[in-house]
Amino acid sequence: MPFSPQEYAERVSRTKALMKAQGLEVFLVFDPANMNYLTGYDGWSFYVPQLVVIALAEPEPIWIGRGIDANGALETTYLDSDNIYSYSDRYVQHDHRHPMDFVAHILRERELDNARIGLDMDSYYFSARGYEVLRRQLSHASFTDVTRLVSGLRSIKSPQELEYMRQAGQIMQRVMKVAVGHVEPGVRQCDAVGEIYRAQMRGTRECGGDYPAIVPMLPTGRGTSTAHLTWNDKPFVQGEATILELAAARYHYHCPMARTVFLGTPPQRLSSAAEIVAEGVQAALEAVRPGATCESIEAAWRAATAPKGLVKESRIGYSMGLNYPPDWGEHTMSLRPGDRSVLEPGMTFHLIPGIWMDDWGVEISESFVVTETGHELLAPFPRKLFVKP
Amino acid sequence: MPFSPQEYAERVSRTKALMKAQGLEVFLVFDPANMNYLTGYDGWSFYVPQLVVIALAEPEPIWIGRGIDANGALETTYLDSDNIYSYSDRYVQHDHRHPMDFVAHILRERELDNARIGLDMDSYYFSARGYEVLRRQLSHASFTDVTRLVSGLRSIKSPQELEYMRQAGQIMQRVMKVAVGHVEPGVRQCDAVGEIYRAQMRGTRECGGDYPAIVPMLPTGRGTSTAHLTWNDKPFVQGEATILELAAARYHYHCPMARTVFLGTPPQRLSSAAEIVAEGVQAALEAVRPGATCESIEAAWRAATAPKGLVKESRIGYSMGLNYPPDWGEHTMSLRPGDRSVLEPGMTFHLIPGIWMDDWGVEISESFVVTETGHELLAPFPRKLFVKP
Repeated sequence: MPFSPQEYAERVSRTKALMKAQGLEVFLVFDPANMNYLTGYDGWSFYVPQLVVIALAEPEPIWIGRGIDANGALETTYLDSDNIYSYSDRYVQHDHRHPMDFVAHILRERELDNARIGLDMDSYYFSARGYEVLRRQLSHASFTDVTRLVSGLRSIKSPQELEYMRQAGQIMQRVMKVAVGHVEPGVRQCDAVGEIYRAQMRGTRECGGDYPAIVPMLPTGRGTSTAHLTWNDKPFVQGEATILELAAARYHYHCPMARTVFLGTPPQRLSSAAEIVAEGVQAALEAVRPGATCESIEAAWRAATAPKGLVKESRIGYSMGLNYPPDWGEHTMSLRPGDRSVLEPGMTFHLIPGIWMDDWGVEISESFVVTETGHELLAPFPRKLFVKP
Repeated sequence: MPFSPQEYAERVSRTKALMKAQGLEVFLVFDPANMNYLTGYDGWSFYVPQLVVIALAEPEPIWIGRGIDANGALETTYLDSDNIYSYSDRYVQHDHRHPMDFVAHILRERELDNARIGLDMDSYYFSARGYEVLRRQLSHASFTDVTRLVSGLRSIKSPQELEYMRQAGQIMQRVMKVAVGHVEPGVRQCDAVGEIYRAQMRGTRECGGDYPAIVPMLPTGRGTSTAHLTWNDKPFVQGEATILELAAARYHYHCPMARTVFLGTPPQRLSSAAEIVAEGVQAALEAVRPGATCESIEAAWRAATAPKGLVKESRIGYSMGLNYPPDWGEHTMSLRPGDRSVLEPGMTFHLIPGIWMDDWGVEISESFVVTETGHELLAPFPRKLFVKP
């Protein structure tokens, strides 16, 4: 397993302490990253309902998932087989039976049903229908939304977690080099993406890559006016920009990075926006230190860029680390006005002040760790618009 | 866009006919595949709440999503800009504001709030919290779960959809050839996965590949006893089996395929299980024709394999086609006892009778289309255990 038994045990006991503080007896954890964080469970099985149960009365977490994934739970977690429950395929994608019927049955069997129960209710893999079934089945329970309870714990990384993120950073540097190299006039976007994926997975000689939570995003031409377009099989075109928003991952710990490439001589507005963004990123990074707030980092960016005429409405970054598709962000802190979360050593962010205009855009980003005295970049890489004449 | 305006218009009108039949006035479509099916919308933005609204009273669908994705909606859909609404970043991942607050506001503005509303409540990207916010905000609406309404429509493919799936089938044959070729003693799993991804994206000379809804799954050694493990950076080992469950995709239309490779001389139980599975697959395929039921295909498999001692509890296949992560399945029909859905020409299935034992397993699968007279394989490929001595 990627972490020591002690590290998993500490995560569980910190979770229980937060549960106690909130008056919860049971916590149903549906988010795959939270499941992995607490038990090590790792598999592409979140397309069916599955969860980890943390109960104050139980020394060990309980895993509940689909029958064909139970061996995966035995293989990837430290859990005793008595704490691994699995439902029959009769419950899978059926009109009248739902896996949450089975979950309720197990909670009753373990006498965890008549309890104050916390849920990560804004998790992708806990559906509205699952919630309705659970409430109907457990009519004596009370439910509280604690979506950010474990994600909050995840924000400060341990030395071992930081080590994996630095390894992801080393892979990321190679990936971006390959990506910039393959954006060439006449090269099909899909072929460049093939090389990007290959670099993401091959990693370094010491460390192979894992799948990032988001596929390569590479809006090109007019598409650079928006954030989340992927690729097709048309070629890159001379005289157009391409945004590369990519990541590398190690045991599901991420290092994302964005850069922009121009084929030909870039228009003045693009070169000058790229310069201002790079200066704004530097200003924001210089504001990073323990005790600073998330909004103060955004304010430093704004102070450096607004006088130059660059104004951005959306957030300029977010905490990130361990995650599964569809997002590498942790959904806790955002670098934006109003977020007064205080930075602490070991927190990790993706600083990505994407600029998307009517028909063009630019992205230059940095992934960083908050250190005792300031910041550490996870993947140093030239912070500029890449121009290929 | 990948389909003609007529094809999108037909999809919308068939959806409205089903809504009328169910007494619904408004349908909130959260599933990204359903959003794409009805409007063409395509972007990796489903990690924040977004939806398409179909209203009987409105000629065109309405797209609602995040501000930075609105240009993506303009770029990838046929919708008029008056029917594209986007929320400010203030709603994103915030403790007290939720994008569903904004959605409710738009529904009120368009006078679609006091209505009989259908929802795809078992969709991954419609959270329990989103549902609670919506119900609180729209206290005069009535809500009905119609999760499988659009997915049901999706099950019969048009000629153009089948064409994309055949293109995916051509890519898939290349991908599996590359995959089998790279499973070699001493090769790191992550390096083989790099080559697999490269082949998935490069596709053919005519057709580039898109991202499949599931990453390559390649349980190896003891891991073959379970279905959904991914890879690490350890090498493949002489004397061990590896299951390759992969797919290729074209405009998000899939052709999945599974095969099993053994490095060395396989144990008798594995070779013989592989033979029985291949015979069972053939028997199931021979039972495919319009008018047959899903359960009759499973029965044909069972009749061919049970007498030889191979018994499988979980379903042996499911309908599939257009989808986004985390699943290429359509979550409608399953090839299993009790599913009396009737096969019709143009339906497409992944027949995957995975065998997972205590510490070993085998997978050999086929993707097929139901034709007027029987079936058509999407990606013919040797249906056997690949032994590399």
